[in-house]
Amino acid sequence: MDAIITLTTDLGMTDAYVAAMKGVMLSINPEAKLIDICHTIKPQNVLQAAFVLSTAYRFFPEKTIHLVVVDPGVGTERRAIILRTPLADFVAPDNGVLSYVIQKSSTKLEAVAITEPQFWRSPVSPTFHGRDVFAPVAARLSLGLPPIDFGEEVTSVTVLPLPHPYRASDGALVGHILHIDGFGNLITDIKSGVLSKAEQTITIEVGNHRISGLSHTYAEGKGLLALIGSSEYLEIALKEGSASALLNAEVGNKVKIRQLSGGSQ
Amino acid sequence: MDAIITLTTDLGMTDAYVAAMKGVMLSINPEAKLIDICHTIKPQNVLQAAFVLSTAYRFFPEKTIHLVVVDPGVGTERRAIILRTPLADFVAPDNGVLSYVIQKSSTKLEAVAITEPQFWRSPVSPTFHGRDVFAPVAARLSLGLPPIDFGEEVTSVTVLPLPHPYRASDGALVGHILHIDGFGNLITDIKSGVLSKAEQTITIEVGNHRISGLSHTYAEGKGLLALIGSSEYLEIALKEGSASALLNAEVGNKVKIRQLSGGSQ
Amino acid sequence: MDAIITLTTDLGMTDAYVAAMKGVMLSINPEAKLIDICHTIKPQNVLQAAFVLSTAYRFFPEKTIHLVVVDPGVGTERRAIILRTPLADFVAPDNGVLSYVIQKSSTKLEAVAITEPQFWRSPVSPTFHGRDVFAPVAARLSLGLPPIDFGEEVTSVTVLPLPHPYRASDGALVGHILHIDGFGNLITDIKSGVLSKAEQTITIEVGNHRISGLSHTYAEGKGLLALIGSSEYLEIALKEGSASALLNAEVGNKVKIRQLSGGSQ
Repeated sequence: MDAIITLTTDLGMTDAYVAAMKGVMLSINPEAKLIDICHTIKPQNVLQAAFVLSTAYRFFPEKTIHLVVVDPGVGTERRAIILRTPLADFVAPDNGVLSYVIQKSSTKLEAVAITEPQFWRSPVSPTFHGRDVFAPVAARLSLGLPPIDFGEEVTSVTVLPLPHPYRASDGALVGHILHIDGFGNLITDIKSGVLSKAEQTITIEVGNHRISGLSHTYAEGKGLLALIGSSEYLEIALKEGSASALLNAEVGNKVKIRQLSGGSQ
Repeated sequence: MDAIITLTTDLGMTDAYVAAMKGVMLSINPEAKLIDICHTIKPQNVLQAAFVLSTAYRFFPEKTIHLVVVDPGVGTERRAIILRTPLADFVAPDNGVLSYVIQKSSTKLEAVAITEPQFWRSPVSPTFHGRDVFAPVAARLSLGLPPIDFGEEVTSVTVLPLPHPYRASDGALVGHILHIDGFGNLITDIKSGVLSKAEQTITIEVGNHRISGLSHTYAEGKGLLALIGSSEYLEIALKEGSASALLNAEVGNKVKIRQLSGGSQ
Repeated sequence: MDAIITLTTDLGMTDAYVAAMKGVMLSINPEAKLIDICHTIKPQNVLQAAFVLSTAYRFFPEKTIHLVVVDPGVGTERRAIILRTPLADFVAPDNGVLSYVIQKSSTKLEAVAITEPQFWRSPVSPTFHGRDVFAPVAARLSLGLPPIDFGEEVTSVTVLPLPHPYRASDGALVGHILHIDGFGNLITDIKSGVLSKAEQTITIEVGNHRISGLSHTYAEGKGLLALIGSSEYLEIALKEGSASALLNAEVGNKVKIRQLSGGSQ
């Protein structure tokens, strides 16, 4: 079956760990189409992986299988799961790495704990379930087996507490940096819908800097810009440079939005 | 259709931007074969992307579609184009990133401005035309639509002023470093044809260093070498090291060629 | 033919060298499935490439073709070979990069020196046999040509002296660091079989540090751990950190195993 399986891992670009997983999958489903999402997630950074995955999975065809291996608890009692949504299937450790996927879903999701060892490689290395458990399960799922064949239905899965903007006592809207991308752009948790009516009359405070109004593109204006990025979050960028480096920014830092004229947002 | 689409971008290896583009393309043409050329072009470095693309596209099968997303003007009035050559199609912003492709072509080329929004994702993010304009256009082109369906024919496209070697008043041939590769090799704009008759009687000056004659391979001699590289340009290399680091070289630096014995070149 | 060809090179992620090889292969066999193993082998580090390849090739389907281009002698008289094993074919320079493959094979292997230029690109760049010799040979091999068509059978191939653990005069088992992975884990040449009976009663000395007993997973304990890694070698790891950085470790460094109670190992 000509299924698509994507891979999101912290396994890096300097070893053959990802290739070993691909070899395992092609041994089971030679027709699988393997697409890399990202392999440079910081080691064991589940939240970063959750965000990066969230910016890509929506663009793949229905029935795509997304394999996620960022797994600090590998070999311990943490569960491994298959999550089926109307759009796609996810195969991942149950450590919160699917938090954004679940948050974005409005329907009831089907989740199965991966417990049936006959679908795994044998023996299973306690240090590399990506190769010995997740990859063979994803490959067999791509052959059309239903999720329930791989284990037992579960009624809840792990969701991490994701940051959310809040209203401060002085009326400012306070958001947070969710992600810093490879350009040094700061992607916040403030969605475009919150801002649409007041775009030109707001100021954005980040670090010791203040930005007036929203830009439409990276090419506009000078210096620091604020705009709605491609994932529809408010984003801080530096024209022809790295906002992250300029601001010495970190994930979790606050970003404040104020109305210039005291208008309601 | 089992078409090949290559990708050359500055989108990096640490985000899911490239994967989002791939998802969009596979949603339109599930049979497309997606091949990465390079995603670590320096942010917005159009000239570097132009050069890197030029070293790869000639080796792909006829009718390959080369998608290039190095796009500092994204969201502004800069044009997006499809360029059809006898060998391949290119989908890119009209910012000069196809300069080498055009320079190497001897026949009249067909160029179309991408203006028909029905082939794009909707809505289009003003910050990520790679995902919302270029990727869907490339994918639909791979299904066999003719370029003209995507917009209007244009009679000229942007070509950047590329460096060219010149003859100095003292008779030296003066070239320039076009590209520094990942090994630290310095690739110049001096083509092998210029040098073929005089290989052993020339000296090459770069920085404060002087190299006598050409080597045939990286393994010959010691220290700094000059040789004809795999793209048939004169190249400066350091045996078992980085010429770039030794010479503190930068793209654009000059390289001088002299005849040892005053012979004509 | 829908063959799999993997690529292991030191050509890096910042140029189009790998893409040029892929273009050449797809021009010959458009159905080939091209899978990256690793392209960030340190320049010309044959031993590192040999190890990285050894951790992946066993997981691919039978008849996979593994193309390896880490080739400090490119353009010189060093041989290029096809090695056929019961599991897979390898196309590589004969410089020892297949040493682990050969060491792990128990049957007689078939090796052919690549000498028939009609299967190469023409002209061959003396600096990039990856593109002009190895890639076209691998692609034609994937079409089903027998190895012997590409040259002449050879009776021996180059194998590098690989480190092996030895017993010191004080009774300690002395191994070596074979590889440092992207997490900073230190992978040694001590195989799991040597340790199985004495797991809990050993101490491991590495640098100025001493580790008591083996862990089962990366998540256990604190600080430095020793465990059996996914390739079944003894591995030193640092919980939530890089053992390599902590220990300032290098490939080749010694690791000593002692029995706590003087028991036999």
